[in-house]
Amino acid sequence: MNDVHRPTLETVAARAAVSRQTVSNALNAPHLVRPETLARVLAVVGELEYRPHGAARQLRTNRSHVIGLRLEPTVDGISGALLDRFLHALTEQAQQRGYRVMLFTAADDDAEIAQYGELLDVLQVDAFVLTSTHHDDPRTQWLSTHGVPFVTFGRAWASGDAAPPVQHAWVDVDGAAGTQAAVEHLVERGHRRIAFIGWPDGSDSGDDRRAGWHRAMIAADVAAPRSLDGLCARVVDGVGSGSAAAEELLASAEPTAFVCASDSLALGALVTARAHGRATPSGEVTAVVGFDDTPVARAIGLTSVAQPLIDAAERAFGLLLSEVHGNRPRSAGGWAGHQVLLQPELVPRESSARPAPRGPD
Amino acid sequence: MNDVHRPTLETVAARAAVSRQTVSNALNAPHLVRPETLARVLAVVGELEYRPHGAARQLRTNRSHVIGLRLEPTVDGISGALLDRFLHALTEQAQQRGYRVMLFTAADDDAEIAQYGELLDVLQVDAFVLTSTHHDDPRTQWLSTHGVPFVTFGRAWASGDAAPPVQHAWVDVDGAAGTQAAVEHLVERGHRRIAFIGWPDGSDSGDDRRAGWHRAMIAADVAAPRSLDGLCARVVDGVGSGSAAAEELLASAEPTAFVCASDSLALGALVTARAHGRATPSGEVTAVVGFDDTPVARAIGLTSVAQPLIDAAERAFGLLLSEVHGNRPRSAGGWAGHQVLLQPELVPRESSARPAPRGPD
Repeated sequence: MNDVHRPTLETVAARAAVSRQTVSNALNAPHLVRPETLARVLAVVGELEYRPHGAARQLRTNRSHVIGLRLEPTVDGISGALLDRFLHALTEQAQQRGYRVMLFTAADDDAEIAQYGELLDVLQVDAFVLTSTHHDDPRTQWLSTHGVPFVTFGRAWASGDAAPPVQHAWVDVDGAAGTQAAVEHLVERGHRRIAFIGWPDGSDSGDDRRAGWHRAMIAADVAAPRSLDGLCARVVDGVGSGSAAAEELLASAEPTAFVCASDSLALGALVTARAHGRATPSGEVTAVVGFDDTPVARAIGLTSVAQPLIDAAERAFGLLLSEVHGNRPRSAGGWAGHQVLLQPELVPRESSARPAPRGPD
Repeated sequence: MNDVHRPTLETVAARAAVSRQTVSNALNAPHLVRPETLARVLAVVGELEYRPHGAARQLRTNRSHVIGLRLEPTVDGISGALLDRFLHALTEQAQQRGYRVMLFTAADDDAEIAQYGELLDVLQVDAFVLTSTHHDDPRTQWLSTHGVPFVTFGRAWASGDAAPPVQHAWVDVDGAAGTQAAVEHLVERGHRRIAFIGWPDGSDSGDDRRAGWHRAMIAADVAAPRSLDGLCARVVDGVGSGSAAAEELLASAEPTAFVCASDSLALGALVTARAHGRATPSGEVTAVVGFDDTPVARAIGLTSVAQPLIDAAERAFGLLLSEVHGNRPRSAGGWAGHQVLLQPELVPRESSARPAPRGPD
C-alpha cells in the first residue's frame, strides 16, 4: 500500500467538514456526536477506507512494549481474587519478555471501548488483554475492526441465535471439564444424588459449569435424566445464597453431595451441610465441592476446582506477542492454535473425603 | 541553575572513561559493576554533583502522566487481597485525575530499585507509589537521593538504633489504634483475659498491632502487666499457625478472647475456639477479632478491623500530585501535612457478639 495516499484523521475531518476531535469521537465515543454528524463522518470513514488506530500502528516503527489491561471493579467476594491472580501472573510474564502492563478502569464494555482510543493514540499501548468475555462482546468486535492486537482470557462465546462470534486469539479454562471431574470424584466415593448449585441462566461460564455437571451425571448413569432438574439450583453468587440453596435442595431432593459454581456458593453449602449433619442421628455430612480453589477453600478444607492461572497468563502473553508481530491467522480455520482451552484440576480436600452414606437406593 | 553546565550521563561517562551503560549500571544495578569501576564512577558522580533521573525530569517539559507501582508477589493467603484492593482504588483515583498506573514486578527491594532507572528513563514514568515500607527501606533512600517524586502506602518506620528515617510523603493506617479498638470492644463485653496472636518481632506493622493490644490492656487495667507476656503468641501468618497458637494459649492462659494480627490467624483461632467451645460443658465459645476485614471475615461472621483503603488511595494520590508538582516541604517540620495516618474501623460481627463467660476472677 502506498503510505502517501493512506487517509489520515485530518483527511477524514476535512472531507466531512468537522474537527479532528469529532472524527475521534465518532470512532471512539459515538454517543457524544449528533446522529446526523455521526452518519456523515462514518460515511467518509467508509468511503476513504480509513483505518484509525490500526493504520497508525502499522506506520509506527517503535513499539512501546506496553500492553493495556482493564482492572475490573473489586468484587467484594471470595472469588474476586481470581482475576487479580491472573493479573499478577500476566505482569510477571510480560516483564520477563520486556513488556509492561498499564492499567485502566471502566464501568462497562462501552466505557472500556471509549478508552481504547486514548490508550492507543496518546499512550501508544501496543496491544490489549481482555478479561471476562461474554457473548455479543462489543470489545472484541471493536478491536478486530480497528486492527488492534489483542488476546482475551475467556473464549469467544457464541451467541444463541446470532452469527458466529468474532474470531480472535484467546485462552480459557474448561469449566465444564472441572465440574465433570467434580462429579466423577464424588461418584467414585459412592455418591449418586449429586446436586449442582450454580448461577442463573445466561452467564456463559456459569452455563458451562452447569453443563459439565449435567453431562457427567448422564454419563455416570446415577440419576434419571429428568430428575436432574430437581437437583439443580440457580442463584446469584454469594455465601448466603449458597447456604439457602443447599437448605432447599436438602429438603426437596435429599442430595448427598453438592457441586458448586464458585467457592462462595460452596462455603455457604458447607455451612448448611455441617449444620444439617449435626442434626441427623448418624451425623453424616453432605460432601461439597467448590470452584476456583481460592485461599478460603485452602483455609477451610474445601475440595475445589483449580484454574491453571500461571499457565493461562503464559499462553495468553505468547498469543499476544504473535498478534503484535502480525502473525494473525488469515483464514477461519487457522485460528485453532490461537485459541487455547486449558484443563482445570480438582484439588481434593476434607469436604469430600468421606464416602457417601449408604442410602435406600 | 545554569542548564548548560548541568552534568549529563555522557559527561560522567567521559570523565570516568566508561560507557554510558556502565554509568547507568553503577547507579541502578551496582552489583553488575566491578568494584574498582564502581568506585571510580561514583567518585565522578559525586565530584560533578550529577543527579541522574531527577535532573532529566526537571528538564522534561511534558509529563507522561504515568505512575509506576510494583505489584507484590501474590500472597497465597487470605490477607493477600489487601494490597490488590489498594491497587484498584489507586488506579481509579489516578484515572479520575488523568493519570495511569504502570505495573512492574520485582523479587525484592534491590530488584525494585534496579528497575526504577528504566522506568524513569525509558518509559518516562512521572512518579512512584510504594507499598510495604519497612525500617531501613533502601527504596525511599534511593528515590529521595535521585529527586524522584514518590509516596508510600506505609509510614517511614524508624529503625531501632540508626538515624531517623528518610523524610517523605506517606499515607498509612494506624494499626495500633485498630487492635486497641478491638480490646476496648471486648472489654465492653466483659472480657478480661484477652490474648493476642501476632507475628514474630521485627515486622513493623506486626509490632505496631501488638503494641496497640498491649497499650489497651494496660489502660483497661484488666490484667497484671507482667501477665501480658503469657497472653501473647508470636507465630508466622497462616490459618494453621493461628489455630495452634490458640490451642496453646487456651491450655496455658485460659483467655476468653483473641485479638489477632490478621484474618488468617483469626480464622485459625476461630476454628480452635469453636472446637474448644463444644468440648466444654457450658459450650461457651471464645471471642475472636481479626484484622483487615477480608471477604473471608465477612463470609464467616468474623469481627475484624477494616482499613480505609479507598480513602488511603485518594490521600496517597493527592500527595503524589503535590510531589509531581514540586510542592515538597523544604524543612523537616514541613512534612506534617504530607504524612497522613488514617484511623481504621472495627466491624463487629458474630465472632465477638456474645458476652464473656463469668469466670472466677
